[in-house]
Amino acid sequence: MQKVDLHTHILPREWPDWTGRTGYPGWVSLRHHGPGCARMLRTEPGGGVATFRDIGENCWHPPARIADMDRTGVGMQVLSTVPVMFSYWAHGHDAFDLSRLLNDHIAGVVRDHPGRFAGLGTIPLQAPELAARELARCVTELGLRGVQVGSNVPRVDDQPWNLCEPALFEVFAEAERLGACVFVHPWEMLGQRDMAKYWLPWLVGMPAETCRAICSIIFGGVLERFPRLRIGFAHGGGSFAGTIGRIAHGFNARPDLCAVDNTVSPREYLARDGAPARFYVDSLVHDAGTLRLILGLFGDRRVVLGSDYPFPLGEEHPGRLVESLADLAEPARARVLRDNALEFLGLPIDALRDAPMPIFHSNLGPP
Amino acid sequence: MQKVDLHTHILPREWPDWTGRTGYPGWVSLRHHGPGCARMLRTEPGGGVATFRDIGENCWHPPARIADMDRTGVGMQVLSTVPVMFSYWAHGHDAFDLSRLLNDHIAGVVRDHPGRFAGLGTIPLQAPELAARELARCVTELGLRGVQVGSNVPRVDDQPWNLCEPALFEVFAEAERLGACVFVHPWEMLGQRDMAKYWLPWLVGMPAETCRAICSIIFGGVLERFPRLRIGFAHGGGSFAGTIGRIAHGFNARPDLCAVDNTVSPREYLARDGAPARFYVDSLVHDAGTLRLILGLFGDRRVVLGSDYPFPLGEEHPGRLVESLADLAEPARARVLRDNALEFLGLPIDALRDAPMPIFHSNLGPP
Repeated sequence: MQKVDLHTHILPREWPDWTGRTGYPGWVSLRHHGPGCARMLRTEPGGGVATFRDIGENCWHPPARIADMDRTGVGMQVLSTVPVMFSYWAHGHDAFDLSRLLNDHIAGVVRDHPGRFAGLGTIPLQAPELAARELARCVTELGLRGVQVGSNVPRVDDQPWNLCEPALFEVFAEAERLGACVFVHPWEMLGQRDMAKYWLPWLVGMPAETCRAICSIIFGGVLERFPRLRIGFAHGGGSFAGTIGRIAHGFNARPDLCAVDNTVSPREYLARDGAPARFYVDSLVHDAGTLRLILGLFGDRRVVLGSDYPFPLGEEHPGRLVESLADLAEPARARVLRDNALEFLGLPIDALRDAPMPIFHSNLGPP
Repeated sequence: MQKVDLHTHILPREWPDWTGRTGYPGWVSLRHHGPGCARMLRTEPGGGVATFRDIGENCWHPPARIADMDRTGVGMQVLSTVPVMFSYWAHGHDAFDLSRLLNDHIAGVVRDHPGRFAGLGTIPLQAPELAARELARCVTELGLRGVQVGSNVPRVDDQPWNLCEPALFEVFAEAERLGACVFVHPWEMLGQRDMAKYWLPWLVGMPAETCRAICSIIFGGVLERFPRLRIGFAHGGGSFAGTIGRIAHGFNARPDLCAVDNTVSPREYLARDGAPARFYVDSLVHDAGTLRLILGLFGDRRVVLGSDYPFPLGEEHPGRLVESLADLAEPARARVLRDNALEFLGLPIDALRDAPMPIFHSNLGPP
């Protein structure tokens, strides 16, 4: 079976100098310093340049990705940018321009390798009207399936927008109208400055950030307001699953604080009575016990293979943890490894190269 | 069986005005405004006063607590202050003075009700030498079993101290020397300002904060440096259990970032090969699946009944979730509901009023 990996990141091999173009720092560039080796650099306020991350060829070179995919049985990767490129801190029109460049690139990679890639765009959430406009272009002109967005939108001298911010509703409305999916990836991690050591912004901050995003969507009533919105969250939903008891108990204990914008309990968005959860999470949890926990909470129709390829916090062999669960039998396994991603993306199964017979309908006649 | 509840909070009925006494605001006072009703108030920089929380009689009146304990089968509550009283933001000597007052109060309640209460002190972590001194007084003069500390120490114009901060080592050294336990309660929640709505600092921030504390203790090598330190964490260890896969994978993937101060993998501090975890967590997770997860990760000798009494995010009937786990048989159930707390506190089982026969040794002769 060809797997579909919902959570992978890609960059163009190069792009113009956005710092020079906009006249202010904070933007990322790529310096190639050897065969297959590059360094992501970020310009700083004082005029300096800081290393963000070293990356390899598989971050920008589709043939290198395809070789890895073939080695690990991944039929299709869903491409999205690296979250540091969101640039929600910048002027909206500058992030809009960069988003267009990144989206054009991803669309080109998808076009050039039929059946091997699908794409999610990036949009300047700090400028919701521009974000909605670029979302529409991604879907209607570029053939992308939706967008990847960050978990909050920082604001200068003000509290960040969480994903329940009314200003963002026009973006969700446009996604719902277009039938585009929204994949939420943690970024601008809470408390980042206060736990600089031991990679804690990635290990503690990111899971908390994703939980904050899910809670914002739930408590803010976003899923009530946009009932057909397909939304998913990276890293198994972060710390949400392991703290659902506290979150739901808090909702029940203090409705005066929690139920002010939505009276539906958090647990009602989870799998219940045979119906799956109201939102998706990827499978990237690196622990069999946690994977079982999220399968139980969200249902096997809402957990989607995601590997964070090609980064080191990812699953090196995408799907290996899912495949290791002996108690996850067919067809649940096929759902998690392939079908749920296609459903989330709104793609038919024959979008896959070497598509198998559509197993769920083949014995039943046309749906 | 009489249960022992490790995680309960208490305040004196009244205490002097610390704002007037110190000459600067930020301190909490209690205003009694009706029978059994009081409001915790905090003075603010501009001279105003903000409501922190409304509390009832069971927060300061031991007989009201004992009535609740008798109703729910709790033989002994372990008393600690309300985390907002930590006052790590204040001048060390002022927090030291307040800590002494609070500790004297708790010691008095313990003394006045033999067998019903044990006590944990509070110490001014921002002044480690004073903190170590008060810790020693708590244990050697007041008969408290150890201390409750916050999850980080805020610093003016600087990054907070995490619990791996070398300045705090003298406190851990003193706890180890005294055989005193250290119970870590989340406070000064990361990202608190940035998610003001929906009680998210309590629902998302606190679990992340506890995870940050556990990771700091592990990655900072505190458990290697103080091998006999008994340390426990509130709320089932917060989001740590549900994100252990990511944390351990991060350690393995980027030792250059994670293993700089300690080369022992996070998983080695968990239950393995029949041995329990290296640290304790309480049982306050409000979800059977999560409780099973932490029992699996830490072992049934390291999960301790904790209810957060008398606050609404707590378990109203302490131990009910543990008692609901049909698959948790004796003696594991008795460990979680009683014995683990006594072990953590360093108390013999006959410290309990109406102490049962010491069941683990009674059939075996003297240990």
